[in-house]
Amino acid sequence: MSKNLTTREEDYSKWYNELVVKADLAENSGVRGCMVIKPYGYAIWEKMQAELDRMFKETGHQNAYFPLFVPKSMFEAEEKNAEGFAKECAIVTHYRLKNDPDKPGKLMVDPNAKLEEELIVRPTSEAIIWSTYKGWVQSYRDLPLLINQWANVVRWEMRTRLFLRTAEFLWQEGHTAHATRKEAIEESEKMMNVYADFVQNFMAIPVIKGLKTETERFAGAEETYCIEALMQDGKALQAGTSHFLGQNFAKAFDVKFANAEGKQEYVWGTSWGVSTRLMGALVMTHSDDKGLVLPPNLAPIQVVIVPIYKSDEQLQAISAAVAIVSAALRKLNISVKYDDRTTQKPGFKFAEWELKGVPVRIAVGPKDLENGTFEVARRDNLSKEVIAADGIENYIATLLSQIQTDLFNNALSYRESHVTEVNNFEEFKSVLEGKGGFVSAHWDGTAATEEKIKELTKATIRCIPLDRVEEAGSCVFTGNSSVGRVLFAKAY
Amino acid sequence: MSKNLTTREEDYSKWYNELVVKADLAENSGVRGCMVIKPYGYAIWEKMQAELDRMFKETGHQNAYFPLFVPKSMFEAEEKNAEGFAKECAIVTHYRLKNDPDKPGKLMVDPNAKLEEELIVRPTSEAIIWSTYKGWVQSYRDLPLLINQWANVVRWEMRTRLFLRTAEFLWQEGHTAHATRKEAIEESEKMMNVYADFVQNFMAIPVIKGLKTETERFAGAEETYCIEALMQDGKALQAGTSHFLGQNFAKAFDVKFANAEGKQEYVWGTSWGVSTRLMGALVMTHSDDKGLVLPPNLAPIQVVIVPIYKSDEQLQAISAAVAIVSAALRKLNISVKYDDRTTQKPGFKFAEWELKGVPVRIAVGPKDLENGTFEVARRDNLSKEVIAADGIENYIATLLSQIQTDLFNNALSYRESHVTEVNNFEEFKSVLEGKGGFVSAHWDGTAATEEKIKELTKATIRCIPLDRVEEAGSCVFTGNSSVGRVLFAKAY
Repeated sequence: MSKNLTTREEDYSKWYNELVVKADLAENSGVRGCMVIKPYGYAIWEKMQAELDRMFKETGHQNAYFPLFVPKSMFEAEEKNAEGFAKECAIVTHYRLKNDPDKPGKLMVDPNAKLEEELIVRPTSEAIIWSTYKGWVQSYRDLPLLINQWANVVRWEMRTRLFLRTAEFLWQEGHTAHATRKEAIEESEKMMNVYADFVQNFMAIPVIKGLKTETERFAGAEETYCIEALMQDGKALQAGTSHFLGQNFAKAFDVKFANAEGKQEYVWGTSWGVSTRLMGALVMTHSDDKGLVLPPNLAPIQVVIVPIYKSDEQLQAISAAVAIVSAALRKLNISVKYDDRTTQKPGFKFAEWELKGVPVRIAVGPKDLENGTFEVARRDNLSKEVIAADGIENYIATLLSQIQTDLFNNALSYRESHVTEVNNFEEFKSVLEGKGGFVSAHWDGTAATEEKIKELTKATIRCIPLDRVEEAGSCVFTGNSSVGRVLFAKAY
Repeated sequence: MSKNLTTREEDYSKWYNELVVKADLAENSGVRGCMVIKPYGYAIWEKMQAELDRMFKETGHQNAYFPLFVPKSMFEAEEKNAEGFAKECAIVTHYRLKNDPDKPGKLMVDPNAKLEEELIVRPTSEAIIWSTYKGWVQSYRDLPLLINQWANVVRWEMRTRLFLRTAEFLWQEGHTAHATRKEAIEESEKMMNVYADFVQNFMAIPVIKGLKTETERFAGAEETYCIEALMQDGKALQAGTSHFLGQNFAKAFDVKFANAEGKQEYVWGTSWGVSTRLMGALVMTHSDDKGLVLPPNLAPIQVVIVPIYKSDEQLQAISAAVAIVSAALRKLNISVKYDDRTTQKPGFKFAEWELKGVPVRIAVGPKDLENGTFEVARRDNLSKEVIAADGIENYIATLLSQIQTDLFNNALSYRESHVTEVNNFEEFKSVLEGKGGFVSAHWDGTAATEEKIKELTKATIRCIPLDRVEEAGSCVFTGNSSVGRVLFAKAY
């Protein structure tokens, strides 16, 4: 199966598109720009959801659900936010179909069922949520509101790619309200850290924490915190964002509270989200030319066991041994699949599970039974070892955690070797056109320079790293003065 | 707080609406017919989801996700289904807003951004899913497909009520594909049984299993299985449906498979769903004039502990004792809240937790500490007992399971006393106008009679019970011959 996969070197973009489909993660649907997330892909997303949901609840957040639709007048209340999303809104204008008198068996939009006010399919939910918060907040005692929502959103993108950019996608969006500016900023930073923790420790993807420039900031935010990851082709991918909204939405929706002194003040807000886009980051960080490579934490199947046999008696003996090891593994909460299909040969099965990224494969034949051993293969580095059957479950448990660590470290060393400091624009361009990755350069702080560099190189400022050193320098493009380096990259 | 709640006797409908809002389950939003599900209500829905999801997976189903939108041509492919939902479709016609030149700061639909083909916001997903299944099924080896989706759907209802009937609601929809008619029927029945098991054992709501008449059947199904519950006002509520779709969608979307002999056949289908409507059933089955009554299985907080004190020293001593019992309860996976707010009096707290339906309340004051006891109150029957602190966690665990059982049995005995056999139309009407509930009557099997009875009494045939006895009789309305009784009722 994997033979048919385009290699990354041949065409990275084609490799990605093929892999997502062939590994049964997702496929394009009959609806422009919308994807179908297939069961195997959805099982990975469910693991992400469960872990994030746990982390949100541990940090004091509760889930709720707000409407899919936003009336136009509500949508446009916060002007910058509205302006930022206006060009990519799906708009409901009618609420009924009727039989088409000219085409028997066909339906048409009923012109008599036009809505008085158009409804926007939410591209993000600040407007509907802040219009609700108005009713929930009277006094400082009602604050903070710490709410999260798991939902679908729609942004009408013209050029779409599975997971990375789709007209509809799934995400979670946190929306919090606070009594003070300080508390809201702390919340934004806390959630950026939760995302970084999740992406690094659960998905094994290293990230750089930073702030967006004004150009790249969320429409309606005062500050956008982000975590930026680096894909194997040297392009960056924004893996999550957390926005400090100031009092913008509170003012747009008149959300005030009486402080301890009884004085009316506007509420301070944050919002933060990650989406099914993370599935794309997962694929592009770890996978190889044979297919998907899944970190054990995210693998729906962590261990696959393939029997090698020539006779039914052999299969029976193998199956008996497999039953024992499977039970032992499951006791350690390791998910196991025994692939005893009689319709496929072992080589076919090996290739299929490699394509699907199962972290550990155990093969077992009559010789192994005799010797009391199993052959254990790692998906990530394709190494194999022969391991004694007795106590193998502990070996596998340790191996899975080793694979998780190794995947992170490999991605980290790739990332570290792809952050390049440059001091002039020739270097800047040659790094971008060469090995790619993040280019660390001085910038004069103006949107005009940022825009000009983007035009010339397609690179954008991914972030102003939170840990950057303040140093005087001169802008890599204009030579004007700069207070520190920022990270540029081409990005998804 | 509960003093303000309208009583059921005064106005059942008003009681329901007030209770849903006051108990923080949900509220109306600024979007016509769409609700906001508040954190407390959503926490209950999450418990339902988790349990159902577990049951679906145990019966071999996997989750996936399909697009929110259905192109009109795809929507109308299965004619009966399209016709059934055409009148309640939200329709996306445009994909961009622009600045309104006449109104500064306002947006308008961009007339140049009209979609070539209108998109229907899914009222149900058979069309989009079967158009996808076409690509997934070639051979009998690809069957069965056992897929579930958790999603939002939109049905443009004119008269809406929180949870019971909203323009947007949350649900799960299972969509399965099978090689044989028999297998598909078995699946439909299996899922009806899963629903009955869930609603009875988890939600403590007794249901009657049955088949819908042709009039009440899902648009596009050959047979609709349902579970019907009875609310405290004598009206029925359809709690879940499972449809045998025959080959209708397979034919509409040309989904064929090669059977073991290599012959092409159309696939057989089922679909099944339950929704946030179940939240309405939950409220209307168990709750009372003081507020919500939650079955322990569904209660986000199972035990609330309220300290009764006059001095800080007393509160400290109580808090120390509470810490011990809380830890012991949590060890048994019982969720506990210690309400030590200093801003509210015990009486206020008692009323608030009664309103919110917490199954067990523990009150503890200085006297209790002296005696080594706690006062334990049940929310369902409002009884109180003084219990020794030592080992109280086991007492509470048993009590919670007793409450779960008692709630079911109470609802069951109410239901049993509200199924009335009648043999003429006068009796039929007098039962409906009197105590209400299910009226068990002979019916001649025609849609015309069903329609006529509905016009005259507002009662519909809720189901043909699966366990009905075949007996010759004469229709309660026309006197024509009948083969057995069916259940009529007024319904939500």
